[in-house]
Amino acid sequence: MSGTGATRVWRKSGEATTRVHLGHGLSVGGGDFVVVAGPCAIESAEQLEKTSGAVKQAGAHALRGGAFKPRTSPYSFQGMGEPGLKLLAEQGSKLRLPVVSEILDAAQLPLMLDYVDVLQIGARNMQNFTLLRAVAKAGRPVLLKRGFGATLDEWLLAAEYLLDGGNDDVILCERGVRTFDTTLRNTLDLAGMAWVKEKSRLPVLVDPSHSTGVQSLVTPMALAAAAAGADGLLVEVHVNPAEALCDGRQALTPALFGGLMSALQGVLGATGRKLAHAEPLHAVGGTR
Amino acid sequence: MSGTGATRVWRKSGEATTRVHLGHGLSVGGGDFVVVAGPCAIESAEQLEKTSGAVKQAGAHALRGGAFKPRTSPYSFQGMGEPGLKLLAEQGSKLRLPVVSEILDAAQLPLMLDYVDVLQIGARNMQNFTLLRAVAKAGRPVLLKRGFGATLDEWLLAAEYLLDGGNDDVILCERGVRTFDTTLRNTLDLAGMAWVKEKSRLPVLVDPSHSTGVQSLVTPMALAAAAAGADGLLVEVHVNPAEALCDGRQALTPALFGGLMSALQGVLGATGRKLAHAEPLHAVGGTR
Amino acid sequence: MSGTGATRVWRKSGEATTRVHLGHGLSVGGGDFVVVAGPCAIESAEQLEKTSGAVKQAGAHALRGGAFKPRTSPYSFQGMGEPGLKLLAEQGSKLRLPVVSEILDAAQLPLMLDYVDVLQIGARNMQNFTLLRAVAKAGRPVLLKRGFGATLDEWLLAAEYLLDGGNDDVILCERGVRTFDTTLRNTLDLAGMAWVKEKSRLPVLVDPSHSTGVQSLVTPMALAAAAAGADGLLVEVHVNPAEALCDGRQALTPALFGGLMSALQGVLGATGRKLAHAEPLHAVGGTR
Amino acid sequence: MSGTGATRVWRKSGEATTRVHLGHGLSVGGGDFVVVAGPCAIESAEQLEKTSGAVKQAGAHALRGGAFKPRTSPYSFQGMGEPGLKLLAEQGSKLRLPVVSEILDAAQLPLMLDYVDVLQIGARNMQNFTLLRAVAKAGRPVLLKRGFGATLDEWLLAAEYLLDGGNDDVILCERGVRTFDTTLRNTLDLAGMAWVKEKSRLPVLVDPSHSTGVQSLVTPMALAAAAAGADGLLVEVHVNPAEALCDGRQALTPALFGGLMSALQGVLGATGRKLAHAEPLHAVGGTR
Repeated sequence: MSGTGATRVWRKSGEATTRVHLGHGLSVGGGDFVVVAGPCAIESAEQLEKTSGAVKQAGAHALRGGAFKPRTSPYSFQGMGEPGLKLLAEQGSKLRLPVVSEILDAAQLPLMLDYVDVLQIGARNMQNFTLLRAVAKAGRPVLLKRGFGATLDEWLLAAEYLLDGGNDDVILCERGVRTFDTTLRNTLDLAGMAWVKEKSRLPVLVDPSHSTGVQSLVTPMALAAAAAGADGLLVEVHVNPAEALCDGRQALTPALFGGLMSALQGVLGATGRKLAHAEPLHAVGGTR
Repeated sequence: MSGTGATRVWRKSGEATTRVHLGHGLSVGGGDFVVVAGPCAIESAEQLEKTSGAVKQAGAHALRGGAFKPRTSPYSFQGMGEPGLKLLAEQGSKLRLPVVSEILDAAQLPLMLDYVDVLQIGARNMQNFTLLRAVAKAGRPVLLKRGFGATLDEWLLAAEYLLDGGNDDVILCERGVRTFDTTLRNTLDLAGMAWVKEKSRLPVLVDPSHSTGVQSLVTPMALAAAAAGADGLLVEVHVNPAEALCDGRQALTPALFGGLMSALQGVLGATGRKLAHAEPLHAVGGTR
Repeated sequence: MSGTGATRVWRKSGEATTRVHLGHGLSVGGGDFVVVAGPCAIESAEQLEKTSGAVKQAGAHALRGGAFKPRTSPYSFQGMGEPGLKLLAEQGSKLRLPVVSEILDAAQLPLMLDYVDVLQIGARNMQNFTLLRAVAKAGRPVLLKRGFGATLDEWLLAAEYLLDGGNDDVILCERGVRTFDTTLRNTLDLAGMAWVKEKSRLPVLVDPSHSTGVQSLVTPMALAAAAAGADGLLVEVHVNPAEALCDGRQALTPALFGGLMSALQGVLGATGRKLAHAEPLHAVGGTR
Repeated sequence: MSGTGATRVWRKSGEATTRVHLGHGLSVGGGDFVVVAGPCAIESAEQLEKTSGAVKQAGAHALRGGAFKPRTSPYSFQGMGEPGLKLLAEQGSKLRLPVVSEILDAAQLPLMLDYVDVLQIGARNMQNFTLLRAVAKAGRPVLLKRGFGATLDEWLLAAEYLLDGGNDDVILCERGVRTFDTTLRNTLDLAGMAWVKEKSRLPVLVDPSHSTGVQSLVTPMALAAAAAGADGLLVEVHVNPAEALCDGRQALTPALFGGLMSALQGVLGATGRKLAHAEPLHAVGGTR
């Protein structure tokens, strides 16, 4: 990448991973493992409230939920829009969890800034350079997903747009790439994630849900990501996957998510790491 | 695609290809072959004027040129912006050629509508659904390039966003996909183009320049596209490829472009087709 | 490829394409376009005889037919074996057409040499180096298909095994590569073919049947291959595609094949080339 | 796969993973994790002896080493042949480790059976059906690597050739697939491995060396494989990677391999598993 002149994404010799503060005392990149969980799409107050409570109780560190969904077909459910964002912000505030949601267009920026702690840029927009430049100036942490057709260099150069634009709070997220094998939704590139961890100073999350598209593979891939050195996860959880309006086939139930959180502790411990601190549910006024 | 409910992109039994009018009397999809040519990026008044005159003289039907360039690195040349658009519009007007240029963001729409006849949506933005929806309402023909990581169905569903949004003047453009083989820039998918021609009523152009990235392969692939039934081409021409600020390695010189136009006549004739009518240069006040 | 020391596959400056003689006066690589046609698999005396007569009548230059079929599943039809080869040789002799058939293993070499004029090495065996070395010593022309997961360099280095082993009579055949898009069977890489034509002195055929897997795309891709400079085609024809034991979905009927041969004449003529000379059917004792 | 009639590779409801006995009391598939280690290629008595002793001391369960190397170029080192096999068998016998080596062709079978405990079928030969059929009848365990261009279904159908041919002692090995991203050698498909573990009763190893091609990524990917449920590893170790004749860039030093074995214990323990029992070096007459 010397030919392109990229300079800001690289890890200098001995340099620590950049620590990105998300709010509510949570940071990513400081060594402890962070789990961002929630539904693919915010569907209703009830669905979000139940799912949020469940992931909080299981120990999740941040809450995710899409209000604007980039759908392949114009006739698929496109998300709740601002009312969804409002519900998400309420749950984040109530449960003291930073919230993450996807921004699709620079024009949505003022709206998004009213509700979310972390701006997610999705795989389809990884090279939407206008969006990258606008978000760079927003002064809010960014979660930059890898495009499913993007090389590792292109992903890092997309991050360079954010860093060059003045925003150093960038978290990368590997979510699988497209290959000739379509048995699974995408091919999760954990070695690519490990390579980026080695070369770049930016923290990297792994999304085992979108990458595989299969519920039963989410936990094995989440544990593999932890063992391979990822800084955390982005996981889909739904109180009732069978009725999800979006990607239900890959969502964990709250029970499965609880099992994952327990298993993560073991694998992280074996490699000298631990889950980030999570305030218990009762401390924020919740009950079992 | 029945599962997704797409209905507008398909070719009904016996239905003719949709004819899209670009301005200056030119249409795509009516059977005659259309060649859109020009530089990858507009670099200066002189570069554009010389290139435009040369492609007009050789028989090009429309003029292309990028003013806003989506570049992988933030440190690469990003295009001239509005001054470039103005130069392009001037050449189009002077030479009576419709002009095509890429729009990167919905916010650029008012500006673009002031200058261009056809709005190009680039490969990286094929699934920028906000942009698709905005462009759908602009009442201007759209050239929708295939994403380099997009399946044929996803490409057609992106077009469906435009059709569903009220814009029927959609031209598709195949420009190569990514594969494990990186000898050439991308892998031109001519069979995919032929499949789309069979299934969809929309006209399809082929871009032999970006897909191969190699000057010497542009003419063979352009002739192959004509033989395989494409509705036209999108070709890069530069008066001095060695000094191009963007993608010079793949640009044709005016002389090579002239040779291509002659060769096209033969191949089209052999398959019962012909080049679209092009007003000669002297008719618009130009000279040899 | 200098790092690998390959020297024999390259086209030296000004060097002509290597002319490979197949028998019955036919050669590939001398400029004229050669069409090798026949069924995917030899199924019976009647099927082969009818198909052979039909392709000969339409002007095919050589006859193809598989007797040993490399099938993904052990439970699919695996070919007729030696009785099939015998039928093929009889038709070749009767119609004065060189015959091409696939060899799967070095141990089959003595058997194959009794019956076939050209040894085909299939896509799955392109890097079966033991087979390449054995075939190199057999003194018989070889048709080397590109592996569906092989880069252009790897394909040329597989040919280098043949050339280095003492066999200069090598014909390459592009048959599509695997990509993330599985709408069609594979993605035909015509630009890769054109690149190989430029860099290597070996003649290159194109297989529009296996690459697309769709009957209606065979003719457009065959014409595209001719326009792009291929030395010829490998095409599947079956007297009754609906009843074919192997790959019937992509086979041309004799009538469609006749139409293709006519159309090829036009496209080749437009680029200053022509079909290789084919002795008419009546000259070999056949009748209409 | 019901369409293909495959029946033998699947895991029936509640069925345990098939346990494959390799010799010297070692089995794969019984739950404990097995590590097969050694050099990519056997280069000399000294290199093999030092490497074998080192991997044995670190706790490896079986020894790997190639005597016949399938190389992309005919001019690359092709392996020591039979003298190499003899050295391997001697080390296996001395250290009481089953030995694994690659067979390239059915004709090599009698020779291979004299020296090796497990016949490896390499990625390039995964669909060499003649070889699969011959090996099926040999009555010796088989390690079947996934082709770098093979889908999961095709890999399982290749195994079905072995099972259908009468050999039930089949171990699968995931070693990465080809994608558009060539930063690393291949893209390790751990989710594909986990999917195969779920669907098939056959044990699956992971090769973190060939898949990544980068020494520093071998340990993270090995730990990820263990966390994701693989039955074991195939790892390259070389006493002096810088001087390796083949793939030195990806080989672990003995010291790094020792570190990997320690780390594996932790990760396996965290998921309720453990390394298979390995007789200590001194028990076989070796010294520290």
